[in-house]
Amino acid sequence: MFEAARAAGIPINIVDKPKLCAFQFGAIVNRSPLVVAISTDGGAPTLAQALRSRIEAMLPSGIARWAQAAKDWRGRVSRLGRLARGRFWERFADLALAAADRAPCARDCDTLFREVRTDRRDQGHVAMVGAGPGNPELLTLKAVRVLRSADVILFDDLVAPQVLDFARREAGRMLVGKSGRGPSCRQDEINGLMVQLAKSGKRVVRLKAGDPMIFGRANEEITALRRAGVSLEVVPGVSAAQGAAASLQVSLTKRASARRLQFVTGHGCDGELPDDLDLEALVDPLATTAVYMPLGTLRALTTRLLMAGVEPGRCASAIFNATRKDEMVVAGTVATIADQATEQQVSGPCLLLIGNVLRSAAWGLAGARRNQVCASSLKNGLAG
Amino acid sequence: MFEAARAAGIPINIVDKPKLCAFQFGAIVNRSPLVVAISTDGGAPTLAQALRSRIEAMLPSGIARWAQAAKDWRGRVSRLGRLARGRFWERFADLALAAADRAPCARDCDTLFREVRTDRRDQGHVAMVGAGPGNPELLTLKAVRVLRSADVILFDDLVAPQVLDFARREAGRMLVGKSGRGPSCRQDEINGLMVQLAKSGKRVVRLKAGDPMIFGRANEEITALRRAGVSLEVVPGVSAAQGAAASLQVSLTKRASARRLQFVTGHGCDGELPDDLDLEALVDPLATTAVYMPLGTLRALTTRLLMAGVEPGRCASAIFNATRKDEMVVAGTVATIADQATEQQVSGPCLLLIGNVLRSAAWGLAGARRNQVCASSLKNGLAG
Repeated sequence: MFEAARAAGIPINIVDKPKLCAFQFGAIVNRSPLVVAISTDGGAPTLAQALRSRIEAMLPSGIARWAQAAKDWRGRVSRLGRLARGRFWERFADLALAAADRAPCARDCDTLFREVRTDRRDQGHVAMVGAGPGNPELLTLKAVRVLRSADVILFDDLVAPQVLDFARREAGRMLVGKSGRGPSCRQDEINGLMVQLAKSGKRVVRLKAGDPMIFGRANEEITALRRAGVSLEVVPGVSAAQGAAASLQVSLTKRASARRLQFVTGHGCDGELPDDLDLEALVDPLATTAVYMPLGTLRALTTRLLMAGVEPGRCASAIFNATRKDEMVVAGTVATIADQATEQQVSGPCLLLIGNVLRSAAWGLAGARRNQVCASSLKNGLAG
Repeated sequence: MFEAARAAGIPINIVDKPKLCAFQFGAIVNRSPLVVAISTDGGAPTLAQALRSRIEAMLPSGIARWAQAAKDWRGRVSRLGRLARGRFWERFADLALAAADRAPCARDCDTLFREVRTDRRDQGHVAMVGAGPGNPELLTLKAVRVLRSADVILFDDLVAPQVLDFARREAGRMLVGKSGRGPSCRQDEINGLMVQLAKSGKRVVRLKAGDPMIFGRANEEITALRRAGVSLEVVPGVSAAQGAAASLQVSLTKRASARRLQFVTGHGCDGELPDDLDLEALVDPLATTAVYMPLGTLRALTTRLLMAGVEPGRCASAIFNATRKDEMVVAGTVATIADQATEQQVSGPCLLLIGNVLRSAAWGLAGARRNQVCASSLKNGLAG
């Protein structure tokens, strides 16, 4: 790409020293023959690098081979009429950016030719995507790529708004799912909508907080999509318990003393604590437990745990808005956490962690144990 | 940006006619002083345009003013020391990309200066990063960013090699941790190395497969870092069970019938199945269980489960190399899975999933139940 500039004697300096260069690029993404160059005119090389990372993240791993295939197929495509040619390259770009972890093959070219000639829209496709615990940086690269190619996004209300910013401006956004104790949207309506949108040729993203396969009620939607013959892809996400553990800097498992990690939900189908809780599993002192959406049933749960024999001093923490800017941690014990957490006037998702691994959580460092710890002050004091 | 090229008489053609140009860009995003140029070497102008619109969508609306602010503040920042300067620009880039729909102001500069001065990262810094289940696209954006800024990466042998490709070429790479049943590197050596590297001013990434907080033996390393006063950041990752669930398109939880999800490990400190397994928790028919590193003790585990009352027909699947190109799924029951899995001559990480949620896993679609399913053929047959 730079041969011409070099031949002309133009100095190229990619480390951004403006005074030494006539021609600058802050950062290069090289997936030759695809090359993306980012320049800040020497002003902010670190910004250029950060952008480079995002662009790298957006590009499927096989994109170089697709760019090469475009060059190879160019002659054949040029024999199409002007409109068909345009359609070919549009579809090619969609395909290259959507499915390009694999290498292109001659059949792809044939398929595109056939599609362009018959001009039939796709049968539709749904990607069920984990939006992670809240911080948009905790999205996976794949989630970003899939969001970016979505025509329409159906999202739950626990999904952090910043995550939706990764979608294209022209993508449709529909809030469909309520979580927690509020009344849910009717599941069959969500199912019907997904199927209908996919069948009309839209690339649909079903965006769920955390990991769609953990307390995401995914199975009903998957079943509906299969019945309708809509193709599906699942993109996993970081779940809330994992985000909270990272914030608290506490390993959820520990050899010998925390050998089992379990995720439970604070309420059954009716929003109440289930009568037939598996108390044996929850009482086990060698397990770490994450309770999803615990607030509505927190007192009932801790009362049951104490009656079943959990020692009152076992560590318990409620984490509100884990990994988000307004994250807040309330640290206590099984005996105290219900009182402490219900005192909080915090909105947003909450998670309860129970287990003695929490003894070594980050706030322990600050010296005296505090019942209530603001995550931001906690983080600043970590290495002290 | 192109003035120099123009002055040198180099033809510039942004509509990609390769034969007419010596120097080509397919598309330009101009947020001057920030400029992003995309070239496909004339091969796929439509792909370049599609990329351009994605990059446009990704850039906050105020980014041009932030890039300009960087130029304006550059003189003041250059008076900081080398490490502090690096930190300033890192934080600047975070801020510019995160909050940049508003214009920057002088106070932003002051705040960054204050943060950088009070930051104690000169003492060294370690980021403990989850590498995810194997597919490099399942890294989080944050993991990519942190990897990209690492001076040295200490990684475990279960980390997929492609993940390391996100690091800078000049970053040091050290294989330190063995996993599974093999002899482990001495933990105190790893701890010592991390502390020593961090204290010498390196940005250290400790890269662990999956999520560092789930069976990553993170607590010992965290304790050592805290004792040494090294600042720490934890970046969560998608764990193997989540990657496997996404591949199988099966929700690990299900209202009413799979209310608890638990992660256990197949071996204790000595590599054997622990004598005091919490069998009650594993027997529960309303739980889904993921067993990490199960191969060495698989027969002992399933025998114990059957003796404890697990019905022999409960679904069990062994997933090898979950989410990687060579992913392979062996589907059976608690009674059969040990025989089936040990027949496989597959290397790489393995995970065992147990629970009746697996009845609705993706291979069910293909019609007759097969004991052994190759994931790639499985995926191709999904929407059928």
